[in-house]
Amino acid sequence: MEQESAKLTAQDGPMYEGKAKRVYKTDDDGIYMVSYKDDATAFNGQKRGTISGKGIVNNQMSNLFFQLLEQNGVPTHFVKELNERETLVRALTMLPVEVVIRNLAAGSMAARLGLEEGMPLSRPIVEYYYKRDDLGDPLVTVDHIEVLGMATPEDLAQVQRLALRVNEVLSETLRKVDVILVDFKLEFGKTKDGRIVLADEISPDTCRYWDANTKEKLDKDRFRRDLGGVEDAYAEMMRRVKEVTRL
Amino acid sequence: MEQESAKLTAQDGPMYEGKAKRVYKTDDDGIYMVSYKDDATAFNGQKRGTISGKGIVNNQMSNLFFQLLEQNGVPTHFVKELNERETLVRALTMLPVEVVIRNLAAGSMAARLGLEEGMPLSRPIVEYYYKRDDLGDPLVTVDHIEVLGMATPEDLAQVQRLALRVNEVLSETLRKVDVILVDFKLEFGKTKDGRIVLADEISPDTCRYWDANTKEKLDKDRFRRDLGGVEDAYAEMMRRVKEVTRL
Ligand SMILES: Nc1ncnc2c1ncn2[C@@H]1O[C@H](COP(=O)(O)OP(=O)(O)O)[C@@H](O)[C@H]1O
Ligand SMILES: Nc1ncnc2c1ncn2[C@@H]1O[C@H](COP(=O)(O)OP(=O)(O)O)[C@@H](O)[C@H]1O
Ligand SMILES: [Mg+2]
Ligand SMILES: [Mg+2]
Repeated sequence: MEQESAKLTAQDGPMYEGKAKRVYKTDDDGIYMVSYKDDATAFNGQKRGTISGKGIVNNQMSNLFFQLLEQNGVPTHFVKELNERETLVRALTMLPVEVVIRNLAAGSMAARLGLEEGMPLSRPIVEYYYKRDDLGDPLVTVDHIEVLGMATPEDLAQVQRLALRVNEVLSETLRKVDVILVDFKLEFGKTKDGRIVLADEISPDTCRYWDANTKEKLDKDRFRRDLGGVEDAYAEMMRRVKEVTRL
Repeated sequence: MEQESAKLTAQDGPMYEGKAKRVYKTDDDGIYMVSYKDDATAFNGQKRGTISGKGIVNNQMSNLFFQLLEQNGVPTHFVKELNERETLVRALTMLPVEVVIRNLAAGSMAARLGLEEGMPLSRPIVEYYYKRDDLGDPLVTVDHIEVLGMATPEDLAQVQRLALRVNEVLSETLRKVDVILVDFKLEFGKTKDGRIVLADEISPDTCRYWDANTKEKLDKDRFRRDLGGVEDAYAEMMRRVKEVTRL
């Protein structure tokens, strides 16, 4: 198989180094390699730290979720896990929007709109943020996205459809291991032949996970809000996701 | 006529005093009286001042526009101008959203999205802001509005339809007196029988007007940005609006 033969082009450093991952080209120009770091940032890079073992959790959890989603009709960039921290993915042209799906009010939405954290929403809310660190990733509307050409109306409709499907699959799955999926962030890219594919990661860095019984936070909010027990929370979520995806 | 007999209930102070206007009950509970002040605020009340004669311009300009819009199929709250600063309007239950229509990028949209001020938009953009001074009037999406119950989907669709119609009528009208309507803010309310009606004001406080030839600003940005000539700009716009609505 083509993807099996993909190798790091050893002479190259990362093509892109982000806040949480490095992305490398491979010998196959349709395949990238993603390498997950333990670096943690919050509040648009203003808060920085390290979460020991985070890269391993985020790599493995993302890959388990991507495989689950593929089985449930959602195309993803996942190709092959190489080792604890490294994965081959389909090389995509990313859409410059982050897609946030919310089941309960929390975080920036609760703060911006004056809502109590944990307030249930009568249906999931999909938000879009313009992926521009220099602007603080501002909230954008469908009009902004279409008129400024961040995505076509057709691509955006497909993104929304897939995002809501991801929410259904993950919410239902996590419920079985007593986790409430409060909200999460997705990124999508486009293949050369124009199909929209789920990319990036799905991890405690990019989701709010609450224990269904204790309401304890099992995600990056422990780092953002200095709650302690960050590594333990990531490990506990890894345990539960492994358990439920093995079922 | 019922509205002709509406009188201030002399014993009452204003029912509501906002940043730019006072709203009074009248003997007719279907009619309010609006009184326009010269007080000017910007940046959510952080900057304060007085623009001499502003209340007169804003009252008269709003009323000319409301009458023009009524002739063009847009229902408005306008009932009767009582004097330079005071107007009788239909009493409405206001929707808690401000509706912003943009033809060129400017102001907060240009700043938030990193766009050059004056960049043309391929079609008008409609934005909604949650009317909550304590939260700084945050941008909201259609999902936020519907799920949080700020307006029903049907009411919001009607608001959008009317807002775009207002934009057509005013843009075309102002073009005849060499004014570019860059962007503007509208507020809508609901009658007892459930109809959506344009309310509040349409004035240099709530619109960006640029001279089509010199690109000179003829609106509240002269106050916001300390450009000087504020009163002259309001007076010049009043002159042009009187001229074009008399045509
Ligand atoms: N399949 C893919 N193809 C191309 N780019 C991707 C893919 N998946 C994720 N990316 C991009 O790689 C980067 C991942 O690195 P990350 O550290 O998360 O960056 P950032 O600091 O920009 O969030 C992101 O910018 C993401 O959009
Ligand atoms: N026809 C109407 N019926 C009821 N309220 C109205 C009507 N038109 C405008 N209003 C409300 O009256 C207030 C006008 O005063 P203003 O000084 O502009 O207030 P604010 O400081 O809240 O913007 C606004 O809150 C506006 O929503
Ligand atoms: Mg990222
Ligand atoms: Mg006002």
